[in-house]
Amino acid sequence: MEQRLSIVSLGVEDLAASRRFYEQGLGWKVSSTSNESIVFMDMGGVVLGLYGRDALADDANLAHSKPGGFGGFALAHNARSREDVDKVLAHAAKAGAKILKPAEDVFWGGYSGYFADPDGHPWEVAWNPFFPLSDDGRVELPA
Amino acid sequence: MEQRLSIVSLGVEDLAASRRFYEQGLGWKVSSTSNESIVFMDMGGVVLGLYGRDALADDANLAHSKPGGFGGFALAHNARSREDVDKVLAHAAKAGAKILKPAEDVFWGGYSGYFADPDGHPWEVAWNPFFPLSDDGRVELPA
Repeated sequence: MEQRLSIVSLGVEDLAASRRFYEQGLGWKVSSTSNESIVFMDMGGVVLGLYGRDALADDANLAHSKPGGFGGFALAHNARSREDVDKVLAHAAKAGAKILKPAEDVFWGGYSGYFADPDGHPWEVAWNPFFPLSDDGRVELPA
Repeated sequence: MEQRLSIVSLGVEDLAASRRFYEQGLGWKVSSTSNESIVFMDMGGVVLGLYGRDALADDANLAHSKPGGFGGFALAHNARSREDVDKVLAHAAKAGAKILKPAEDVFWGGYSGYFADPDGHPWEVAWNPFFPLSDDGRVELPA
């Protein structure tokens, strides 16, 4: 089995509102393969998808669950500097995100905060001096 | 804000068991940056992390929640062919994964099934003729 993560799909309650947050709010490009029931964004080789929450559960043959709580996962956007963490969190807040945790120095030696998207899905924004970013923004994880 | 997803962190109840599933079961390489409280795997520019479920909630300033149910998200591993979908699902099942949905032809024109990792996190395994893969396995999403 090849070591590959192709798509991260987020279950959302209001696809139009969620698309607006990511596209107009955060300013991310949406793929032309999107339609009225699904949205795809190219995150650099991995795809971020937005899809109806109940429809996503149905697709995976799982029982529906209430939105809002901790879903057992978090996404992270690694920034290029400490200053960029503050800028990105301010940008997300302006786009309507709830700030879950303002940026702070963290025990592992970085600087990090969290915002929630319109469905409460948590995004960490972090500066991690141990995970350098390539020019195109990918994490260059030590083997 | 750059369009970037750096890390997907999965909250897990038994880190050693979860690491065993991904490393020995699925056969994926674990980064040397991992330690007894966190595991990182390079998925091709995006990192998959395993971290204690409650610790992850704490990190995001969210209330703990019970594991097992649908967490509002799904991951996908896109395979290179229909046949590979069946092979990957069989490989995951042999590694101890629960098959949530056997592979089937799906309405959008692909072929897909789902397995769950030891914490119930859903992985879709899909062949999607509309999302070609590059040689190194990244999705080449149409702009």
